[in-house]
Amino acid sequence: LPSKLPNVGTTIFTVMSRLAQDTGAINLSQGFPSFDCSPDLVALVEKYLRKGANQYAPMAGVPALREALAHKTLAAYGVSYDPETEITVTSGATEALYAAVAAVVRPGDEVLVFEPAYDSYVPAVELNGGSPVFVTLTPPDYLIDWEEVRSKVTDRTRLIMVNTPHNPTGRVWTTDDLNQLADIVQDKPIWVVSDEVYEHILFEGRTHHSLMTHPVLRERTFICGSFGKTFHITGWKIGYCLAPAGLTTEFRKVHQFLTFSTVTPMQYALADFLSVPEHYESLPAFYERKRNLFLDSISGSRFRFKPAEGSFFQILSYAGITDEPDYDLAIRLTKEIGIASVPVSVFYQQRNDYQLLRFCFAKDDELLLRAGERLSRL
Amino acid sequence: LPSKLPNVGTTIFTVMSRLAQDTGAINLSQGFPSFDCSPDLVALVEKYLRKGANQYAPMAGVPALREALAHKTLAAYGVSYDPETEITVTSGATEALYAAVAAVVRPGDEVLVFEPAYDSYVPAVELNGGSPVFVTLTPPDYLIDWEEVRSKVTDRTRLIMVNTPHNPTGRVWTTDDLNQLADIVQDKPIWVVSDEVYEHILFEGRTHHSLMTHPVLRERTFICGSFGKTFHITGWKIGYCLAPAGLTTEFRKVHQFLTFSTVTPMQYALADFLSVPEHYESLPAFYERKRNLFLDSISGSRFRFKPAEGSFFQILSYAGITDEPDYDLAIRLTKEIGIASVPVSVFYQQRNDYQLLRFCFAKDDELLLRAGERLSRL
Ligand SMILES: CSCCC(=O)C(=O)O
Ligand SMILES: CSCCC(=O)C(=O)O
Repeated sequence: LPSKLPNVGTTIFTVMSRLAQDTGAINLSQGFPSFDCSPDLVALVEKYLRKGANQYAPMAGVPALREALAHKTLAAYGVSYDPETEITVTSGATEALYAAVAAVVRPGDEVLVFEPAYDSYVPAVELNGGSPVFVTLTPPDYLIDWEEVRSKVTDRTRLIMVNTPHNPTGRVWTTDDLNQLADIVQDKPIWVVSDEVYEHILFEGRTHHSLMTHPVLRERTFICGSFGKTFHITGWKIGYCLAPAGLTTEFRKVHQFLTFSTVTPMQYALADFLSVPEHYESLPAFYERKRNLFLDSISGSRFRFKPAEGSFFQILSYAGITDEPDYDLAIRLTKEIGIASVPVSVFYQQRNDYQLLRFCFAKDDELLLRAGERLSRL
Repeated sequence: LPSKLPNVGTTIFTVMSRLAQDTGAINLSQGFPSFDCSPDLVALVEKYLRKGANQYAPMAGVPALREALAHKTLAAYGVSYDPETEITVTSGATEALYAAVAAVVRPGDEVLVFEPAYDSYVPAVELNGGSPVFVTLTPPDYLIDWEEVRSKVTDRTRLIMVNTPHNPTGRVWTTDDLNQLADIVQDKPIWVVSDEVYEHILFEGRTHHSLMTHPVLRERTFICGSFGKTFHITGWKIGYCLAPAGLTTEFRKVHQFLTFSTVTPMQYALADFLSVPEHYESLPAFYERKRNLFLDSISGSRFRFKPAEGSFFQILSYAGITDEPDYDLAIRLTKEIGIASVPVSVFYQQRNDYQLLRFCFAKDDELLLRAGERLSRL
């Protein structure tokens, strides 16, 4: 069978997590918590499991969960979405991203992708016959050159992929970024997919400027979110897509044939859990403390860094410590000092190597402290 | 946004289930049980939820579940699949079907589809740029004319979609069907997707001739299965794909960007539950009794039927009772006598109307008896 994705190998997340497991290393590579979710959330799932909520959910998601999402979105961002026609529950944000791309992109279309980019964007575009066009962001600030973006928009541009707070850099979009993007897409047949799975993880009191808060972008954007990242349940695979009704109609046509619906008892449990704002409002302080703990623990080391503005990832530069390629170093650190990370080059199409590693700090304090100690010995 | 699936509306399953709910009708339309799964299975999920199995499963599925699938497949069909390289857990059989199609089909390819066909096959083919080519099967026997199949295979044929036991007709493939298919695809670059979600629901002691049992087909088929149909948990959305290593490599490349992985605690629970053969070996007797109960309850009616050979669907012919189009009748029966069914015409591309309705008998005895009474009054 000739491959439709000849450039795709095993994802770095699988490679590094497996290596971490095989070597007993502390796994700061793949983005998932080492700690468990709230026992209250588990108890809610048990309640609905026992109530027999074990058959198909509605294709668009359990109504109570869509309503809870509408409430939260209004409370958190002041923007209204209609649960009936504008909110869809998906099998993880990964499915939401794929379905949005599949709803829009046809063979020959161009899709603007900012890199470093999460690994699913380009295959999703390519499987739908689109061509990614890259705008490359560079350390340490990863600022967007909007003139470059403008110069790369053509008549074939059909979609722009956005991610804020950004994985792997932790950078957060500003209102100026929103205005610039709106200015570019306004009056053009260009849609936007916005990966906002770290929407509740921003530091030093920063505001998440969701693309929905800009009226022009509200009308042409698929906002993709994740309960996994917010409630420490990456293994439940429940995400969602908020999009205006016209886009949601097309999104759901794809969703219904990709997965049809999403695990029912967890949806009911999340509907209840989400309606307590404290459950997500506590997240910035929770993760800021962890980020600081990790950064403090390596303060005596030779790694250099800019603290992440958001997300649960921290990039460290090893320039001046060693000249190894980042991929080799990530493997070596896993094997030799027992710390698994992700080489940042994998997020660039051309594997640009800026001597950077990404560390996930969604881990128990004790693991972060041990990791810091080991890294400081380098 | 111009639609990539202009012919897709709300699926019949959503339409009828919603109408049944709004009118309080007995819902024999959408294929899901009205009863709950085993409390032992719920208890197993609770165990793993509490153990903290709440983060990402491996992309290919929890190893214990893949191993349990390998054991079951060997025990039930005498065929070996390697859990490491040939078995993938998916977010429902729907995802497995979509990923298999997406792994194979490119723009311009032709895909043979037997109709009546489950509603996701054609959109999956079309979203990947393929053209469906239909082989039409007709009541009451739905036998395959293999000369017709041969005549429709061209140089562009890349895939053949199979479904046994068959939804909506309940027909079961014979070893002759397997031989005929093998003869056609042998030595050609044609792959097969086999939807076998009703593999454990066959009546009168019939054998499920899985495509894997034919050596030629074993090497070119994606076998798609479902725990939802087998263990009464359609809402958990866990399915799987068995395919030779070369096909699995391409299948996983798609799966990892569609959903990445599938709900973790349920996977562990299913690994334990699946290792007790009684849990699926009891299914034929369980559903044969329900089918018979339903058929007995309408024995005094003017509906005519051939008992389903497999699946949990029974087709009834209303020829001679009324001349209404099947779609209209399905709606009217829901509203007027409180029985929701599915008009069989929706499974045909040209909406062929043979005056047939499909009834799901995966329902409590009492509902089936009440439905039979009401249908007998017609
Ligand atoms: C789906 S595995 C990858 C998890 C993640 O978001 C990351 O590590 O970047
Ligand atoms: C995914 S909803 C449809 C369920 C089903 O298999 C059917 O009713 O045919």
